[in-house]
Amino acid sequence: MYKLASKDRRPHSVVRAAGVPFGGEGFTMIAGPCAVESRAQIERTACFVAEAGAQMLRAGAYKPRTSPYSFQGLGDDGVELIAQASRTAQIPAVVEAMSETDLPVLCRNVDMIQIGARNMQNFALLTAAARTGKPILLKRGPSATLDEVLYAAEYILIEGNPNVVLCERGIRGFDPQTRNVFDLAGALRLKELTHLPVIADPSHATGRASLIEPIVLAAAAAGLDGAIVEVHPDPPAALSDVEQALDFPAFTRLMGRLQALIQASPSNIPLAACR
Amino acid sequence: MYKLASKDRRPHSVVRAAGVPFGGEGFTMIAGPCAVESRAQIERTACFVAEAGAQMLRAGAYKPRTSPYSFQGLGDDGVELIAQASRTAQIPAVVEAMSETDLPVLCRNVDMIQIGARNMQNFALLTAAARTGKPILLKRGPSATLDEVLYAAEYILIEGNPNVVLCERGIRGFDPQTRNVFDLAGALRLKELTHLPVIADPSHATGRASLIEPIVLAAAAAGLDGAIVEVHPDPPAALSDVEQALDFPAFTRLMGRLQALIQASPSNIPLAACR
Amino acid sequence: MYKLASKDRRPHSVVRAAGVPFGGEGFTMIAGPCAVESRAQIERTACFVAEAGAQMLRAGAYKPRTSPYSFQGLGDDGVELIAQASRTAQIPAVVEAMSETDLPVLCRNVDMIQIGARNMQNFALLTAAARTGKPILLKRGPSATLDEVLYAAEYILIEGNPNVVLCERGIRGFDPQTRNVFDLAGALRLKELTHLPVIADPSHATGRASLIEPIVLAAAAAGLDGAIVEVHPDPPAALSDVEQALDFPAFTRLMGRLQALIQASPSNIPLAACR
Amino acid sequence: MYKLASKDRRPHSVVRAAGVPFGGEGFTMIAGPCAVESRAQIERTACFVAEAGAQMLRAGAYKPRTSPYSFQGLGDDGVELIAQASRTAQIPAVVEAMSETDLPVLCRNVDMIQIGARNMQNFALLTAAARTGKPILLKRGPSATLDEVLYAAEYILIEGNPNVVLCERGIRGFDPQTRNVFDLAGALRLKELTHLPVIADPSHATGRASLIEPIVLAAAAAGLDGAIVEVHPDPPAALSDVEQALDFPAFTRLMGRLQALIQASPSNIPLAACR
Repeated sequence: MYKLASKDRRPHSVVRAAGVPFGGEGFTMIAGPCAVESRAQIERTACFVAEAGAQMLRAGAYKPRTSPYSFQGLGDDGVELIAQASRTAQIPAVVEAMSETDLPVLCRNVDMIQIGARNMQNFALLTAAARTGKPILLKRGPSATLDEVLYAAEYILIEGNPNVVLCERGIRGFDPQTRNVFDLAGALRLKELTHLPVIADPSHATGRASLIEPIVLAAAAAGLDGAIVEVHPDPPAALSDVEQALDFPAFTRLMGRLQALIQASPSNIPLAACR
Repeated sequence: MYKLASKDRRPHSVVRAAGVPFGGEGFTMIAGPCAVESRAQIERTACFVAEAGAQMLRAGAYKPRTSPYSFQGLGDDGVELIAQASRTAQIPAVVEAMSETDLPVLCRNVDMIQIGARNMQNFALLTAAARTGKPILLKRGPSATLDEVLYAAEYILIEGNPNVVLCERGIRGFDPQTRNVFDLAGALRLKELTHLPVIADPSHATGRASLIEPIVLAAAAAGLDGAIVEVHPDPPAALSDVEQALDFPAFTRLMGRLQALIQASPSNIPLAACR
Repeated sequence: MYKLASKDRRPHSVVRAAGVPFGGEGFTMIAGPCAVESRAQIERTACFVAEAGAQMLRAGAYKPRTSPYSFQGLGDDGVELIAQASRTAQIPAVVEAMSETDLPVLCRNVDMIQIGARNMQNFALLTAAARTGKPILLKRGPSATLDEVLYAAEYILIEGNPNVVLCERGIRGFDPQTRNVFDLAGALRLKELTHLPVIADPSHATGRASLIEPIVLAAAAAGLDGAIVEVHPDPPAALSDVEQALDFPAFTRLMGRLQALIQASPSNIPLAACR
Repeated sequence: MYKLASKDRRPHSVVRAAGVPFGGEGFTMIAGPCAVESRAQIERTACFVAEAGAQMLRAGAYKPRTSPYSFQGLGDDGVELIAQASRTAQIPAVVEAMSETDLPVLCRNVDMIQIGARNMQNFALLTAAARTGKPILLKRGPSATLDEVLYAAEYILIEGNPNVVLCERGIRGFDPQTRNVFDLAGALRLKELTHLPVIADPSHATGRASLIEPIVLAAAAAGLDGAIVEVHPDPPAALSDVEQALDFPAFTRLMGRLQALIQASPSNIPLAACR
């Protein structure tokens, strides 16, 4: 059985990435493009999402793409562009590592390392990422049980790195109407099993921009700890994940509604539901 | 392609069952025991849930049980007990039909007929239930696509009965941590495809009493039209679904938090998200 | 727990429908069109499949179609056409019941009653069909566990009807490359849990005519008790299931290869594997 | 779309690993323990499976285990033990790589490199393994579509390494009766889409020793190109995968039945079904 990840160990943890808290009273928003595409694109997006209230920037530089013929990301150069945008906009950044060889550049440049769904059980990468000491955003694999998620987290915790945030990004389903199945109850159950923070990724879970806002509001009302959403200055022109990114006005609207939902909730009602 | 159920036909429908609206501005709560077990049990529960703010009573009389050795419900006598409790507590009732032969008794006694998940594609039953003219609560089958749900609704609509409420009650998943997978994004997508109201059933979707409250709050925040939850005076003593019923204090707490969430939401924010 | 269906009760059962055995030494083939479409179509097919070595004729008269706008079958008239073809070709017939109201006509005309996958947990229909005394072909639902299949069989057995044949016809999967996922290991495991015969339905499981032959050969080699396949004189012109029916030459080839496989197997090798 | 893996490119490929062919007329058996545990265990098993007719030895040295507290394999030392056993028994060996750092030792010591299901979309590892020039055994991930499998193969082929064997090892299912769902029709469909050989792994697909033999026979009868099965001198004492390994007598029996099935089949019948 997993030990360090278990709720028996402690009721809950607050994980901080460059000062941004996950797992406390608030609901933490991470936003940004699927992939960094150019200096202008990432700077513009970073400044926008920071202004709109996001606490952290997301963007991919090493992209795990199903097809070798798809855009593979800008690699090390992309990481530097993200880092510059992060400094300019004064918003910390999280970037995915696809391989142990990506870790040194990421360590020097970003505030949190993401392990993607396809690598959730890439145990060599989990261990190596843990040893960097950076906070880790660990995404649930598309057919991972909650136990498997927690064992994957255990591989990180056992290296002495306590800063793990879990992320529900959808499990494989049978209906092409949504890209995956957003498992809200699974994410809530995860919070009953572990002290680690759990956030939602409605972009990958649904594959539909129109569903991002209601899923984020649902996650907040149900008591999850945050969300990570794709935002792009011009979604139809994006080099990847065209269907599942919000444009700027949609993100502004989402943040307004989220703030209203959160502020309207006395501390003893809705948002505390799961804690 | 389905036609009468399509959003192309109209933007949205308000379905009324004995005056209780589904699909309007509000969030409609249905509550009650998995099954009627005795006069005292159903009367006490009916009065309690009505008092606590539920708008409709649920209870099973004909129980579709996986095993023939499980409690099969009180049958016709159960329907009469539900009907009496419904009148006493002045709260309309919805009861599931398992067979065409159940329909006459149900028609005389209850306000809405439920078609359960296992019978979602029992087309003979869909047609016969439609012809009663009663409003129908149609539950999504555990492996039904959204298209299949809408075609099942079409079998009802085509009989001239426009009063169909859809219900997401969880799809079959691979992780025993939850009984099924509550497909929130699927339910939201359904509302993009159809004008019919869509509600959530967190009891059957999760199989865990502790997850009912956060799922109901999530459903409300995301813009679904209501929820149906199991409430029992003494869940551990229930004859069925022991794990997934709320006791009275938990239901009171849920209704309080739900009211706070709803009242806090200006008409142009959260709750309107999906409409 | 199920009792009458359990292997603890007896090692294996041979079920006979009009003399055709399921569950003995042989491998029983059922073949015919998805639906009866005309007298000529069903007679021609019945004579052909009987000649080619099939032991039983299949054809639908009451068709459970996802859409109310699809061809719904010829109903009672269709049953009579099937019965006439069955007599002409001297091959017994199995036809699906969709509702209790279908049972009287079926009882007078056919040799075995099918309960389809969508109705596997239509307990009222299971009970009513059992009481006819006819042998029952019970298809596994697309998201039914093996326990649920066996409990459904128990609903029939408990009525005093011991003649139940189970059928694996594919479970819901995530890849549109096949219509469903043919769960061979599940079917084999079923035979470890029950004494009832288990056959395969590769037409519905795969939705692809090209996969029917190899799946039938696999089922025979692994020790299942038979198969039910769709055969149509002119598949592209069929009114339903166009993609998953064999034409006559393909069925002839399949039967040749199946016979070669079976005859080549000494009684103590391959085909006895699972017994 | 994938290009190099497509059947449009060529009708079929024969891949050779140290002379052992995959994809030709025969059915290639790989056998051995889940993990190398000791010199005696691997030598004894290697000699036994070679004697019994297996053409290739399998054994894990770097074990991807769900829990960090489970036996993690003997690592580099294990590879050397496997290599010695392989030479002693004169049977080539396939060993899984969990990380790019495992590749040099594997390249010096074994004949084929396995990419496990959990790493099917670890694109960095796919690319690095491809560049070793060794033949690759690529296992389908538990929720991978066939397209995703073929794109993963494409990542290898695009590096100029044409020697890829695909392996169906079960997809995630909802019924705990089997560890996974063996997707026979998916494996057969894969052969329609690609020229690459496709083999079956019934040990991981089913998690039950009793189902290995019938699944291997089914795979052979349906026209797959081989199978990889777990064999251990004393399965109950194994350090991993206790439930799904054959003991020596069971493997002998399997090989006997497999030979009978294959020899009995004239070249134009059963075994050629899918080719």
